[in-house]
Amino acid sequence: MASAQEENPVPETKVLAVASHVSYGFVGNTMATFVMQSLGCEVAGINTVHYSNHTGYRQVKGTKTTAEEVRTLYDGLTQSYLTDFDVLLSGYAPTAAVVEAVGDIAQDLKRRAEGKPGSFFWILDPVMGDLGRLYVAEDVVPAYKKAIHHADLILPNQFETEILSGIKISNTTDLANAITSIHKTYGVPHIIVTSVQLSSLGSSTPSGLMTVIGSTVRSDGSPRLFRVDIPALECNFNGTGDMFAALTVARLREAVYATGPTLRNTKSWVSPDDVSPTELPLAKSTEKVLSSMHAILLKTMEAREVELAATANTIDPTGLTEEQFQVREHLRRTKAAEVRVIRHADYLRNPTSMFKAQAWAE
Amino acid sequence: MASAQEENPVPETKVLAVASHVSYGFVGNTMATFVMQSLGCEVAGINTVHYSNHTGYRQVKGTKTTAEEVRTLYDGLTQSYLTDFDVLLSGYAPTAAVVEAVGDIAQDLKRRAEGKPGSFFWILDPVMGDLGRLYVAEDVVPAYKKAIHHADLILPNQFETEILSGIKISNTTDLANAITSIHKTYGVPHIIVTSVQLSSLGSSTPSGLMTVIGSTVRSDGSPRLFRVDIPALECNFNGTGDMFAALTVARLREAVYATGPTLRNTKSWVSPDDVSPTELPLAKSTEKVLSSMHAILLKTMEAREVELAATANTIDPTGLTEEQFQVREHLRRTKAAEVRVIRHADYLRNPTSMFKAQAWAE
Repeated sequence: MASAQEENPVPETKVLAVASHVSYGFVGNTMATFVMQSLGCEVAGINTVHYSNHTGYRQVKGTKTTAEEVRTLYDGLTQSYLTDFDVLLSGYAPTAAVVEAVGDIAQDLKRRAEGKPGSFFWILDPVMGDLGRLYVAEDVVPAYKKAIHHADLILPNQFETEILSGIKISNTTDLANAITSIHKTYGVPHIIVTSVQLSSLGSSTPSGLMTVIGSTVRSDGSPRLFRVDIPALECNFNGTGDMFAALTVARLREAVYATGPTLRNTKSWVSPDDVSPTELPLAKSTEKVLSSMHAILLKTMEAREVELAATANTIDPTGLTEEQFQVREHLRRTKAAEVRVIRHADYLRNPTSMFKAQAWAE
Repeated sequence: MASAQEENPVPETKVLAVASHVSYGFVGNTMATFVMQSLGCEVAGINTVHYSNHTGYRQVKGTKTTAEEVRTLYDGLTQSYLTDFDVLLSGYAPTAAVVEAVGDIAQDLKRRAEGKPGSFFWILDPVMGDLGRLYVAEDVVPAYKKAIHHADLILPNQFETEILSGIKISNTTDLANAITSIHKTYGVPHIIVTSVQLSSLGSSTPSGLMTVIGSTVRSDGSPRLFRVDIPALECNFNGTGDMFAALTVARLREAVYATGPTLRNTKSWVSPDDVSPTELPLAKSTEKVLSSMHAILLKTMEAREVELAATANTIDPTGLTEEQFQVREHLRRTKAAEVRVIRHADYLRNPTSMFKAQAWAE
């Protein structure tokens, strides 16, 4: 029997996780909670929606949580002195009012951590849209722009980076400028832009690669940019952003602790200026996070092929219109692509190192 | 890197879990989901309450799920063909209407499994009360009495066994009669009565032991009674019933599969009459479940002592009435006793065998 210490490489971490909940499948808190728990984190979940399944199925039933309900649950925690959180991880919020409630919760937790720099850290995934399309109400955007001033690390995709920076990203210089602008405008010390296709931005990076770009700010406000390239996978997964965020909670804390006792007692865990981009805990964390993810997504693709083969021709087209048949096929394919995180949890805990961060200068 | 097979001793299992959700701490689905996931089960959760914390704190905020919301979430699963569940695990339901909704879900899943005996199994924890006190509304009792006819395994405590059987349990003969009566009245093939203190029922069992009594019915309706004795722990834990139920989902399936391909394709997994009480998969499962639980609860007691020592004298009595001070102390003690399941998950996966089932004849 391994000791709790050997079993749990990641330091003890209490996380408040505010995101969506689905009954079937893995996105939002349903993904993030299991991932963080597998790495030894205690997770308190406040669920912003209660849905039957993720929206990738294109049909869903359930309810949204109101901002008042989110606030009430948090009040329940404070009245019983259950607010000893090291990290807040916040994801999808269905309304601007819920974004505001989460911002207020973050500020309350920050206030409670006053005088103990580094003892509380907010990782915020500003879920607003993707690929040029906003999928939240328009008033959610200004709510995020206000809240983000209090975040320690944000995880926007390329489209969300454009929204937050106000910079249309057409080439790699735009991307670097957008990150610099976000550091400056919002005072956010750490940024990771998830899944950028550099080849589409005029870079010589092969088109079969996806890139994650990160940065921890220097004291002069300049970014320390790094990149990690990973093979792009030919599959529409759901919940990968939530998996990335959840793994980052555990791995960033682990990487910060690995530097010794100083950094973790420093406000927002910002490394001294002489730490190079690739030596940043954020870069070390991202390498490990992506190694876990890539292994699990490869296993998911294998399992998807098996499930698609086993369920091929199981939908009887008799009495179905072509459109109804296509809906059924879409449901079958979406279910087959659910991320196989449960039975491959060992890849979360013990990833084989596959990717290296490189400095990225534009 | 272990293969998925080596990593997961328990057969692939898809579970629909209907129970309460708390943000902080571990009871209901918050406990059961992690426990089952740790053993490799895919878990779809429908949460019957959304509370800040468990009721052992004596104060709680949050909302109850209505029966209509439970039905809507299940409708969401059926409309997208996401009902491939092997097991339904149902726990706390806040109203009679929710008990009825869960009963209807169970019957729908049973109907979908028609023609494939053993392919669907319902484990029902009839949460009604404890130690002589009902803690649900009175109309929940007849709702359970109706639903239980469709369950494969129920997990009542001694008080719930009295309610369901209508037999007041004053001695061990009463207990055996109550179990026999439940087999007969409700046609429930498997019963486990959790945490009985046999010494209080006139048995010569030492008072420091707690006993779990189980039975799988024979074809003539007689019970096959077994007992597993465990040391009683001096601590009020919350969520242990949910941990027991969740571990049983995985371990019972594992034990049934271990007997070969016949039993798992038999209605309700009822072993042939020549299988003795202690050789029942239900007995094998209970041995393993209790070994995991005992190890984790011992670790919890250690961690509780450390936390109570670290937080001793942290509550400033200035300005507090004696009653207010006692409320704060109760909150502190309750928090310290939260089950440490996350950082000792290896005891869930790989328990050291500690307890043996014995035949129990009264």
